[in-house]
Amino acid sequence: MDLAAFIRDVPDFPKPGIMFKDITPLLAAPHAFTHAIDAMTIWCRARKVDAIAAAEARGFLFAAPLAIRLGVPLIPLRKPGKLPYLTTKVDYDLEYGTNSLHMHVDAISAGQQVLLVDDLLATGGTMAAAAELIQKAGGQVAGFLFAIELSFLGGRARLGKHPVHSLLTY
Amino acid sequence: MDLAAFIRDVPDFPKPGIMFKDITPLLAAPHAFTHAIDAMTIWCRARKVDAIAAAEARGFLFAAPLAIRLGVPLIPLRKPGKLPYLTTKVDYDLEYGTNSLHMHVDAISAGQQVLLVDDLLATGGTMAAAAELIQKAGGQVAGFLFAIELSFLGGRARLGKHPVHSLLTY
Repeated sequence: MDLAAFIRDVPDFPKPGIMFKDITPLLAAPHAFTHAIDAMTIWCRARKVDAIAAAEARGFLFAAPLAIRLGVPLIPLRKPGKLPYLTTKVDYDLEYGTNSLHMHVDAISAGQQVLLVDDLLATGGTMAAAAELIQKAGGQVAGFLFAIELSFLGGRARLGKHPVHSLLTY
Repeated sequence: MDLAAFIRDVPDFPKPGIMFKDITPLLAAPHAFTHAIDAMTIWCRARKVDAIAAAEARGFLFAAPLAIRLGVPLIPLRKPGKLPYLTTKVDYDLEYGTNSLHMHVDAISAGQQVLLVDDLLATGGTMAAAAELIQKAGGQVAGFLFAIELSFLGGRARLGKHPVHSLLTY
């Protein structure tokens, strides 16, 4: 299936000069969305994946069906002030300023192989921070899985030597 | 299955006096999370559901697996500035100030029966706004489906005469 047919280019979002890859047509086409989750599942089954972690909000759209399909725990990584229990966090740089990614302190067991899932790999900043958070908590990074990769932004280079897979690459 | 065993009470979050219902233990228990999605699927199969709409971020965790399971479109409802294409919006009141819920203008076909899904029904403000957004765009509200309902907050009264179902009620 040509998943690219379900991604809409939206020019000048979130700011002039940026061509945004809009996944809402994919979400609106059940056979295509299911195909994407199937393809992610197949990639995961060739590896050891003990748990899936994803950052809010779009990451949840792929990570939740995938975790259900694989029968593994789903770990939400969230912005400050969203998780109610004790959290551990990692700060990371944005284009302007910094942000933090939080995770519950009891989310990971030592040695667990945790797969990081997101809708889009751009510069890799958020996912590099997510990997740091997993490792800080005693987990291991099983790899990174994306629906879309903007390869011209070089995000892969920030993700270390872990396996990285994307369903669609631009 | 006793889903309540997978919900953690966190006192004084997000502010003193509030007992927060934390769903992360449910997400971390694949058999329980799958059971919740199964129970939601069964409820939906007894109705006409053409599409599922959910508000970021926790709503996505239940809505995405459910949309995949039912084979229906998933419509993300988002905070301002998140959706890249043309949007329609509804403003609604918070305890302090107001917020807006946005949806892409092409997300719904006229007459579609749209089910609204969220992790938690509290005062019902967000979901009442979501229903208004669906109807404004020409859709019909098929009902509301929640993992958890805090019935003492009376949210149901704000959701009109549509069917409302919750897996767990406190």
